[in-house]
Amino acid sequence: MLQLVNVGHKSLGDYRTLVTRGLMEEIKRLAEPLAGARVVHVSATAFGGGVAEINYTLVPLMADAGLDVEWRIIHGSEEFYNVTKAMHNALQGDPRSLSSEDVEIFARYNAQNAADFAESDYDFVIIHDPQPAAMIDAFPQRTAKWIWRGHIDFSTPNQDVFDILLPSLRHYDASIFHMREYAPRADGLGRVVIWPPAIDPLQPKNMALSPEDAAYIIDQFGIDVERPLLTQVSRFDPWKDPLGVIDAYRDVKRRFPEVQLALIGSMAHDDPEGWEYYNRTVEHAGGDPDIYILSNMNNVGGVEVNAFQVHSDALLQKSTKEGFGLTVTEALWKARPVVAGRVGGIVAQIDNGETGWLVDSPAECAEACIEILRDPAEARLRALKGKEYVRTHFLTPRLLRDWLVLFNQLAGRDTGASDIISV
Amino acid sequence: MLQLVNVGHKSLGDYRTLVTRGLMEEIKRLAEPLAGARVVHVSATAFGGGVAEINYTLVPLMADAGLDVEWRIIHGSEEFYNVTKAMHNALQGDPRSLSSEDVEIFARYNAQNAADFAESDYDFVIIHDPQPAAMIDAFPQRTAKWIWRGHIDFSTPNQDVFDILLPSLRHYDASIFHMREYAPRADGLGRVVIWPPAIDPLQPKNMALSPEDAAYIIDQFGIDVERPLLTQVSRFDPWKDPLGVIDAYRDVKRRFPEVQLALIGSMAHDDPEGWEYYNRTVEHAGGDPDIYILSNMNNVGGVEVNAFQVHSDALLQKSTKEGFGLTVTEALWKARPVVAGRVGGIVAQIDNGETGWLVDSPAECAEACIEILRDPAEARLRALKGKEYVRTHFLTPRLLRDWLVLFNQLAGRDTGASDIISV
Repeated sequence: MLQLVNVGHKSLGDYRTLVTRGLMEEIKRLAEPLAGARVVHVSATAFGGGVAEINYTLVPLMADAGLDVEWRIIHGSEEFYNVTKAMHNALQGDPRSLSSEDVEIFARYNAQNAADFAESDYDFVIIHDPQPAAMIDAFPQRTAKWIWRGHIDFSTPNQDVFDILLPSLRHYDASIFHMREYAPRADGLGRVVIWPPAIDPLQPKNMALSPEDAAYIIDQFGIDVERPLLTQVSRFDPWKDPLGVIDAYRDVKRRFPEVQLALIGSMAHDDPEGWEYYNRTVEHAGGDPDIYILSNMNNVGGVEVNAFQVHSDALLQKSTKEGFGLTVTEALWKARPVVAGRVGGIVAQIDNGETGWLVDSPAECAEACIEILRDPAEARLRALKGKEYVRTHFLTPRLLRDWLVLFNQLAGRDTGASDIISV
Repeated sequence: MLQLVNVGHKSLGDYRTLVTRGLMEEIKRLAEPLAGARVVHVSATAFGGGVAEINYTLVPLMADAGLDVEWRIIHGSEEFYNVTKAMHNALQGDPRSLSSEDVEIFARYNAQNAADFAESDYDFVIIHDPQPAAMIDAFPQRTAKWIWRGHIDFSTPNQDVFDILLPSLRHYDASIFHMREYAPRADGLGRVVIWPPAIDPLQPKNMALSPEDAAYIIDQFGIDVERPLLTQVSRFDPWKDPLGVIDAYRDVKRRFPEVQLALIGSMAHDDPEGWEYYNRTVEHAGGDPDIYILSNMNNVGGVEVNAFQVHSDALLQKSTKEGFGLTVTEALWKARPVVAGRVGGIVAQIDNGETGWLVDSPAECAEACIEILRDPAEARLRALKGKEYVRTHFLTPRLLRDWLVLFNQLAGRDTGASDIISV
């Protein structure tokens, strides 16, 4: 069988005080008819990236709700991952196509993994992202319901590459996308469902952290904790616009000379472009001693990211292109004022002027930061509303609820739930 | 000029309660004649690895002691780092030599960086590790004292490659090594000095963390905090022997079926061999749900490593080859029982039977763990002695003292300090 991922145990009861009572009761009601249902999540990797992060909470919570759930990892190798990386880029719009050799490699690894997979052991098979999407082809006679979870933006795919995937996708009983806009325009798909991802409020990156502990931790990275701080947490790539953030910070600094900037990135090992852009960012900072550029290569993990968010006067996510933008969700959850690009899933999270600030340029970003630094009390009110919006919309128990609704629906049960969107 | 690294501010006063009063007074006395001395650290990178970690504390503490200190990074590129990586391996014994093209690349980048470097701006130039070691060749008329800090084991170098470096090393006023055994056997070097590295007790990885906070954090990674836990923190490579650790854990599990194992690694982005060995480790774990294999790719940063150490019943460092082994220092500092391989700098840190356990095989490692789990109170006494040994020998203020002694000696002042070793 495919490699099992060890997710440990989590208890739904621990989330009781963080979400509404109605939601907890709905989860209980939806889970009852699913007791013992055999569910497997299949994905390409157990670490790094949004899928893994969500599954480390979602899978144990599904188990705690009474389902018999596993998470398994497909077997790959460099040649396969090179192909799936090119495929990933193409599905998000990269015009480069795949060679016939690439297509053969993709099909071969999917067939090999399917041969190691006991389809009939499960009631629900959840396939995450494109890498294992073609495993389904090996099972013309399916006994389980198959669900494909696409975590990226399929609104403007490279059509040649999407067409390689499409015949497999048509076999699925349902496909799920983060936003309506991200679903592919294609005929013959099974049920298409839309729901946003979610964050775990109890994981070290999001757990309650006292202002004192946060200040202690970031002090150790050299930040002056008495002076204002702006922070952006995100990968180093052009679409997160760290250079634009530095430009905005420079604008702010003319009004608030004491301001500091932290850019905190998560570096992936297989991402030479990320390192190149990291270096460009360092260069753009030009040795400014008030700019701190850090990453998981400097002992920055979940708690440290949390500390930077909790301590900052404003949190930025000046993206010019964005998937859903869970870093925005995490920032809002800290009840800090959030300034973010008006793109992708960010607009589903921030109501401009109500729960945060949406901006379209470094100048607007700087303006919002100046507004926040000038009137922190007013900014705080907006931030608190942002946190409440996250509480009701983007915490893992809501995501669990959505899955339970879908399982029930695929099993032909009427759940009475109206607010997962099928399109 | 070369790129400056922003290290922020740290205050020696914060370390006062952690080290002896005698040491703080000695630092003050040694620093007085050095007030305003212009010092520069030069290294290849500002993140990842031991040099960077030490410098983020050492450099601001040197500044707080009254020196005018900077840390600068040389400019490199892939071709240069490929050469210096091969050189690094060869200096530790890899028989593969460098091509004449490699040698030319090494010399060219060193000359380019030297051209960007204002030697006469400094009283002391500290060059870390081999990458920038040949910059000195560009300054036949030196006004500063030049010191070379070798952080690796030069006891059995590939002689061909060492001979490429040796003419440059002979120009230095002093060279420093972690241990007497690691100094190269070579004529014509300036003063050769031995002192061990050190850890920062205030950085998030080592700061005081309550047992409750530690348990909360590791609970979120799925660990059962009610059951015993063994942890090894180290890279995934053959010399840290994660496979041997798993074997030892399996032995322990026969006596203590409840025991769990965490293997926590720091992955570097430019280390494909590390990833290969990570995968071998996962395979060797064979899906055992009580083995947790984590890294900085799972949001594990300094605080999380700290939490794992604080919560564990025993900390392992089953190395079969080791530089100095600062992970052992960090483990001892947490006052947890430490079981480590009898190699390299580990033997300078652990007095077997007194402050910890030294072992030569998985079987001995398992035996030590069983002894610890069987009599935690007795193990705790040993661990507390280990912590006190770290307090007096391996915290950054001691390292700062050693540097101040050397600066004074190179400036021709008698410091009265007898305990830095010149060989």
